[in-house]
Amino acid sequence: MERHFQRDLEQLKSNVIKMGSLVEQNLADALEAVLKNDATTASKVISADGAVNKMEIEIDNGVVDLLALQQPVASDLRLILAIQKINNDLERIGDHAVNIAESAYRLVETPQEEPLLEIPNMAKIAKEMFQQALDAFIHLNAQLAQSVLESDDRMDALNRGMNSQVIRMIKKDQKTLEGGLELLRISRNLERVADLTTNIAEEVIFHTQARIVKHHATEKG
Amino acid sequence: MERHFQRDLEQLKSNVIKMGSLVEQNLADALEAVLKNDATTASKVISADGAVNKMEIEIDNGVVDLLALQQPVASDLRLILAIQKINNDLERIGDHAVNIAESAYRLVETPQEEPLLEIPNMAKIAKEMFQQALDAFIHLNAQLAQSVLESDDRMDALNRGMNSQVIRMIKKDQKTLEGGLELLRISRNLERVADLTTNIAEEVIFHTQARIVKHHATEKG
Repeated sequence: MERHFQRDLEQLKSNVIKMGSLVEQNLADALEAVLKNDATTASKVISADGAVNKMEIEIDNGVVDLLALQQPVASDLRLILAIQKINNDLERIGDHAVNIAESAYRLVETPQEEPLLEIPNMAKIAKEMFQQALDAFIHLNAQLAQSVLESDDRMDALNRGMNSQVIRMIKKDQKTLEGGLELLRISRNLERVADLTTNIAEEVIFHTQARIVKHHATEKG
Repeated sequence: MERHFQRDLEQLKSNVIKMGSLVEQNLADALEAVLKNDATTASKVISADGAVNKMEIEIDNGVVDLLALQQPVASDLRLILAIQKINNDLERIGDHAVNIAESAYRLVETPQEEPLLEIPNMAKIAKEMFQQALDAFIHLNAQLAQSVLESDDRMDALNRGMNSQVIRMIKKDQKTLEGGLELLRISRNLERVADLTTNIAEEVIFHTQARIVKHHATEKG
């Protein structure tokens, strides 16, 4: 029984990591679509989301089966519940990648080409945070997870900064209105991606150190 | 053991319902703050969110304890996992209520008073959806849950409509820019509240009918 359980748990973890890689690729593609003004890559992200949703359901069913058949307790139980939440967070990051890809698609169509302002910077940080959170989960490394939490404040500040920069841009030239709104959408989606990678990091810390860091002062929802 | 389990499960359900009522009140207050341009009510929502976050953690711990001590299987296990997800959805709706309250707060400060466009309509639908989803959970009523799903498409359409209405408004009078952006924020938060109540309704349907309606065609993330 015990060996059987460990094997199933490893399988579940490896599926989450596989899903993480898929979402990581979609996020990277969505951001490339924005930065390179590339509608083809944007479409690719939108059609790849079905696979992410399918994996989420599979992992969710795996969680239920493992709980029902093996009835784990203590640390194993908490790890499985953490996996369930991380699975959900990953699926939502996938949704934000789709939103970003849709914005990229619409930006290609706006006649005016706006400067991307803080978006390249935010994209870089979001990708780093995601990679760190996934690595922290793979190695159950609380220290690495901690560094994700620290980046989240920077993303919040950049997102707020985007708001005032876009308002200034539109006031200077009203032709940038539609494009500017699209940039705000991308900024907000990136800020949400940062929040969700923060959730993943918090789950890792919670599991490894069994202390609650949720609802820390900077969390926004 | 069995009676003990049923009592604990009822306790857990009743805590979720209590949390649901708290979030329902915060959402109603946040919307009243927007509709009546009332900063005092907005502040009330912002300070009430701590209680919601505290309840989420308590319910989450209750879930872990119940799984660890009672090791339920089959239908009971699925109900507990559904409760865990609904708990998380409720907490996130609470966060959106805070976001709406913050927008209300900033709207009070904008010199220009904008028309609220579709916001009153969206507010009414969001509150109805929330109430129906919570009732569907209380009575495990799949039919009621189904009606929540149907309203979600309307909210998506209204949110898209808001976007073009606000763009028109700003183009006509650039002084409405800041207020218009705030209205878009509120609209988007309401659309997310509708998504999350839809998630709750889907969990109820999933539990009562054991079929997956997640990732239905209209879901957006």
